[in-house]
Amino acid sequence: MAAAFEEAEAAFARGEVPVGCVVVDGASGAILARAGNRTVELADPTAHAEMLALRAACAVCGQPRLPDCDLYVTLEPCAMCAAAIGFARVRRLVYGADDPKMGGVRHGARVFAQPTCHHRPEILDGIDATRARDLLRRFFLERR
Amino acid sequence: MAAAFEEAEAAFARGEVPVGCVVVDGASGAILARAGNRTVELADPTAHAEMLALRAACAVCGQPRLPDCDLYVTLEPCAMCAAAIGFARVRRLVYGADDPKMGGVRHGARVFAQPTCHHRPEILDGIDATRARDLLRRFFLERR
Repeated sequence: MAAAFEEAEAAFARGEVPVGCVVVDGASGAILARAGNRTVELADPTAHAEMLALRAACAVCGQPRLPDCDLYVTLEPCAMCAAAIGFARVRRLVYGADDPKMGGVRHGARVFAQPTCHHRPEILDGIDATRARDLLRRFFLERR
Repeated sequence: MAAAFEEAEAAFARGEVPVGCVVVDGASGAILARAGNRTVELADPTAHAEMLALRAACAVCGQPRLPDCDLYVTLEPCAMCAAAIGFARVRRLVYGADDPKMGGVRHGARVFAQPTCHHRPEILDGIDATRARDLLRRFFLERR
């Protein structure tokens, strides 16, 4: 989670919504990929931290599925990212702050709670939630 | 929709689930981007036709939002693609066959029906649905 926060802080410094993500090998704990939000820089609405980290981890592994991997992200994933995490067959999802407005795990689309969901990772939420929420608050306060 | 089917047929020929997508300028009707599924080729679980076409259209326009654009796709988008379509502020979504198993528009996560959904495109469904369904059926029959 420390590396995910480094990525979130780096995103903040780039003027991006401060969310960071890492994908780790579940057995060794080695980081396979890490990313922060880059939607502004890349002019790409899909360039959320989770999507970039998932795609990079799949590129490292040479396969579209990551059944032995865990994904750490500072904020509750949105519906897009949650569905992508499911497609990638991620073993465990660990996230920080809840996101009642944009989240798609515990809120909104509740992707993994749908009967049509084909893969539901183990989910650990609320990890370093206060730090993640404070980072986002500081970002949006500065933007106002 | 004809171009979307060309992309779906091309995906079929590459051994990918045959779904095709185009993003058009809503005013002129000009095609900004077109893509078929490439999840196998790219080893990327996010490489659905809609995601590739959205990202390419944003790259063409140099911005992460496409409020004057319409997206045509042969199959009901999944939750990931539906959420991405929302983030991109696509004006109109036109799709072919329903997808009760993986769809996230009329089925499953019903992304645009959530109270937390920030942008809901105009939706036209069932366009050339039989052709889209037949193409998918043929693909999965051949795979068995």
